Amino acid sequence: MVQKAERAGSRLKPHFKTHQSLAVGKWFREEGVDAITVSSIQMAEYFAGDGWEYITIAFPVNVLEIDRINRLAASVKLSVLVSDPVAVPLLARGLETAVSVYIEIDTGSNRTGFNSLQTDQVVETAKEINSSAHMELAGIYSHPGHSYASRSNEEVQQVYQEALTVMKAVKSELNALTDEIRICLGDTPCCSVMEQFDGVDEISPGNFVFYDLMQAQIGSCTVDDIAVALACPVLARYPERNEIAIHGGAVHLSKESLTTAKVSHYGYPVRLTKNGWQEPWEDSHVRKLSQEHGIIRCGSNLFESLQLGDLVGILPVHSCLTADCMMGYLTPEGNRLDHLRSSSLK
Amino acid sequence: MVQKAERAGSRLKPHFKTHQSLAVGKWFREEGVDAITVSSIQMAEYFAGDGWEYITIAFPVNVLEIDRINRLAASVKLSVLVSDPVAVPLLARGLETAVSVYIEIDTGSNRTGFNSLQTDQVVETAKEINSSAHMELAGIYSHPGHSYASRSNEEVQQVYQEALTVMKAVKSELNALTDEIRICLGDTPCCSVMEQFDGVDEISPGNFVFYDLMQAQIGSCTVDDIAVALACPVLARYPERNEIAIHGGAVHLSKESLTTAKVSHYGYPVRLTKNGWQEPWEDSHVRKLSQEHGIIRCGSNLFESLQLGDLVGILPVHSCLTADCMMGYLTPEGNRLDHLRSSSLK
Repeated sequence: MVQKAERAGSRLKPHFKTHQSLAVGKWFREEGVDAITVSSIQMAEYFAGDGWEYITIAFPVNVLEIDRINRLAASVKLSVLVSDPVAVPLLARGLETAVSVYIEIDTGSNRTGFNSLQTDQVVETAKEINSSAHMELAGIYSHPGHSYASRSNEEVQQVYQEALTVMKAVKSELNALTDEIRICLGDTPCCSVMEQFDGVDEISPGNFVFYDLMQAQIGSCTVDDIAVALACPVLARYPERNEIAIHGGAVHLSKESLTTAKVSHYGYPVRLTKNGWQEPWEDSHVRKLSQEHGIIRCGSNLFESLQLGDLVGILPVHSCLTADCMMGYLTPEGNRLDHLRSSSLK
Repeated sequence: MVQKAERAGSRLKPHFKTHQSLAVGKWFREEGVDAITVSSIQMAEYFAGDGWEYITIAFPVNVLEIDRINRLAASVKLSVLVSDPVAVPLLARGLETAVSVYIEIDTGSNRTGFNSLQTDQVVETAKEINSSAHMELAGIYSHPGHSYASRSNEEVQQVYQEALTVMKAVKSELNALTDEIRICLGDTPCCSVMEQFDGVDEISPGNFVFYDLMQAQIGSCTVDDIAVALACPVLARYPERNEIAIHGGAVHLSKESLTTAKVSHYGYPVRLTKNGWQEPWEDSHVRKLSQEHGIIRCGSNLFESLQLGDLVGILPVHSCLTADCMMGYLTPEGNRLDHLRSSSLK
């Protein structure tokens, strides 16, 4: 992703919400990355503590956190996201330190962001930002999350092109105001599938650091690219229904499900090896999750391969949520890597 | 629940997996409860540290944790669950301290437990347990989790009666072996709906401590009975689609969903008050969750009632998972209550 961004002439500001790990963050730094994206003030503080200087909180700014924003902005180059015009006067009143501001544009995901048809509102908000003592408009940001509904490269490309067309149209309205409007697009499917990012100044994908089964289904990656698995003890075997119970439930994997070949499931089992894991067993999947239990529906090869006391790997449907549930990592070499959620409690 | 168990002559061993809190545990102790149920060795250790003496780990015993089991069993009256006959010889080899053992029976949920038709296997396992130096058969346990598919008291009662018939049949096979076989049934729907537990020595419901929207749909409780809500900051308002974005996503509520009147959702919004919250707004629900974002589809009353910077409560679909995600509680009086997941990291 670093090389692709370089080739395309876009600045990569990877989203660290997927891994939330200082150790994983260092891998990016070693590749020359110097600016990051996060999804909360707490996450921004965590990475600021490890020396990250350019931090964008790509999440609708929470005016209740104005004191923490002021404190953090005093020590790093902080960018925040405005997703509702009402946030701007509230920010203007509370800010005591300079921050950059992105206006979030809804390019079709209907999650957050300004309605892209209401360009008057975007322009008015941009003026209000630039007329405030402590705010400077950095650009416009969009997470075209409806790319997650795609099931082919062509569909992802279409989402990307439509989002980019919207963003360029909004930018052209803002050019009268200032010519330094950056376009930032951030989602793993688009950034994985596209090779060129003409007109896109910054990209901020996050999930690609690990990928997962959902991304493989979209076409962002292959199953081979998935870089995290949950190691689960085998607790019980039920030959009459060809199922295996594991310690690995909704509090570990999250309850995110995926439908593959009309079967809804919570992940694929893999055999753990010294250096990682093998390809998933065909015709096997996690059928059911309760709080701590997982039930694997097995193809016959898998059932006979696993015994009580073994560990089996589960490739997650949504790695961001699984990592957040587990609050840490163990590498094949046996090293433990930090995660914000466990570190902040110490 | 304490009074109902007393009236019915069953011992209440409440499941603490829902709250995972020493502070909440103390409320049970004040009501005279002296035996509890948990779902992991870590949870057992946590409550043992607060003086709980009778602890059942109602989760298929994990032989990889034999050292921790031995250590804990040295200081409390520990019961474990056997859900696969293969676990017994592994336990027999590793145990150095006395534990009580329940054999788990699958009464129809198809999650874990011995097949109830294979009574020979249950009897053989019971013999093996009682012939082991460090194990004593305490009874048979079942979580008739298929009660969660019920949508009326009558359906829950039917699940309960069928499960009890199965348990009594299994017990009668074991009576030749010993006459001290206890029947333990543990699920919130059955324990909430039933008033009599004839033949059931112990009940171990857990979720009833908080209840949630799923339990209200089943008929275990009313929405008024729900005792936890997630407080979420309002981040952005979108009048054209009558939606409000909140900081409250899959990492806070969990991704458990519920279908009510053909609408799938992740919780109901409520107005927070000094002492708790009001009834849910009608025609409003959490339509969508991503990692940190929640999107509330509003009835018009709700939309106009909430402004940026307000907090809104969300009644969870599944309180066990929401509590586990949040790792702590704040009471209306402003007191913070502990949760295993955050305490164990300190």
